[in-house]
Amino acid sequence: MIFSSRLIETAVAEFAKLPGIGKKSALRMVLHLLRQDTADVDAFASAIATMKHDVIFCRQCHNVADTELCSICVNTHRNQHQICVVETIRDVIAIESTQQYNGVYHVLGGILSPLDGIGPDQLQIATLIARAHADADMQELVMALSPTIEGDTTVYYIAKQVQQLPIKVTTIARGISFGGELEYADEMTLARSISKRLPIDNYVNLGKS
Amino acid sequence: MIFSSRLIETAVAEFAKLPGIGKKSALRMVLHLLRQDTADVDAFASAIATMKHDVIFCRQCHNVADTELCSICVNTHRNQHQICVVETIRDVIAIESTQQYNGVYHVLGGILSPLDGIGPDQLQIATLIARAHADADMQELVMALSPTIEGDTTVYYIAKQVQQLPIKVTTIARGISFGGELEYADEMTLARSISKRLPIDNYVNLGKS
Repeated sequence: MIFSSRLIETAVAEFAKLPGIGKKSALRMVLHLLRQDTADVDAFASAIATMKHDVIFCRQCHNVADTELCSICVNTHRNQHQICVVETIRDVIAIESTQQYNGVYHVLGGILSPLDGIGPDQLQIATLIARAHADADMQELVMALSPTIEGDTTVYYIAKQVQQLPIKVTTIARGISFGGELEYADEMTLARSISKRLPIDNYVNLGKS
Repeated sequence: MIFSSRLIETAVAEFAKLPGIGKKSALRMVLHLLRQDTADVDAFASAIATMKHDVIFCRQCHNVADTELCSICVNTHRNQHQICVVETIRDVIAIESTQQYNGVYHVLGGILSPLDGIGPDQLQIATLIARAHADADMQELVMALSPTIEGDTTVYYIAKQVQQLPIKVTTIARGISFGGELEYADEMTLARSISKRLPIDNYVNLGKS
């Protein structure tokens, strides 16, 4: 693409660095911003810069936060003795959007993957173990990690570290998605959904728990 | 979506205002930027703000420019007596990318559309007519507007204003796209491509002209 303005060219190149954005989409966004009021464009640019400069990570759960402890960790209406262990901030947002979980979180920052050079020291595992040991009333670690070999490895690694403590370690249920069709489910998922089948009364109560 | 940080929420909301970007894509971009170096994010934000503040529109052709006259209007290697009339800046970029046009441009900023309240006064038509009158050596206006009723109306309106001048008014060719299949072409396009058929020697020389 040939631009008659270096300023436009630079802005398009910056947008095109974003994930999933090609040159054409980037140009579309730049021309859209060019049509907006200057105040709106300044608000856009400053929201991004401010976000990057001012956002901090919760000292306790490593989720994004505006203060030293995130709004979930300081919420006394939530069960502070139940920790949902997730890989990324995005998982926290996904689980929060279900409005079905009332405990707190711990963001690992990834999962164990020796092939990629990611060991326990690259993740927030030590701080999780420390949290589990520090709270005498800790009840449960809900492992909500990827259903992969690496995810399972991470689950077992963490479970082993807390096995001396009176803490329940669970993983989120795996099975057929709502609206999913049996014939298109992969064998692993289908096999597991059969071996972990639920009695009907459990099933009909799922929405309430 | 529920966010634990107002800063993230604001940034996501700003990205979601862009065309074609939903909340999920916006979040993906924000989390991507959060992982980048602060300097890179600052460069992104400042490229956008600078673009909006400093970009100017060429005094002559109304294309985006960094200086009072755009790089195309000041280029003495281009034919300054041939003006390609387009609706938007995006059309200039599209035509420039073909590297087949060596004249200059005039960006109307839209096309005549009485139903949307867009008349000649809302567009840069008067300045185009003035350019045509001001240059005694003006040769041609190449109308590259949308192939719609509004586009055709605009073409005729402009052609009528310059009919006293010794200027050729042409429109870009309409027909079947390269790689297009006849059976899927709409009737209007197919009909026009038959009525405006070209002799073979014209056809094989198209690439050279």
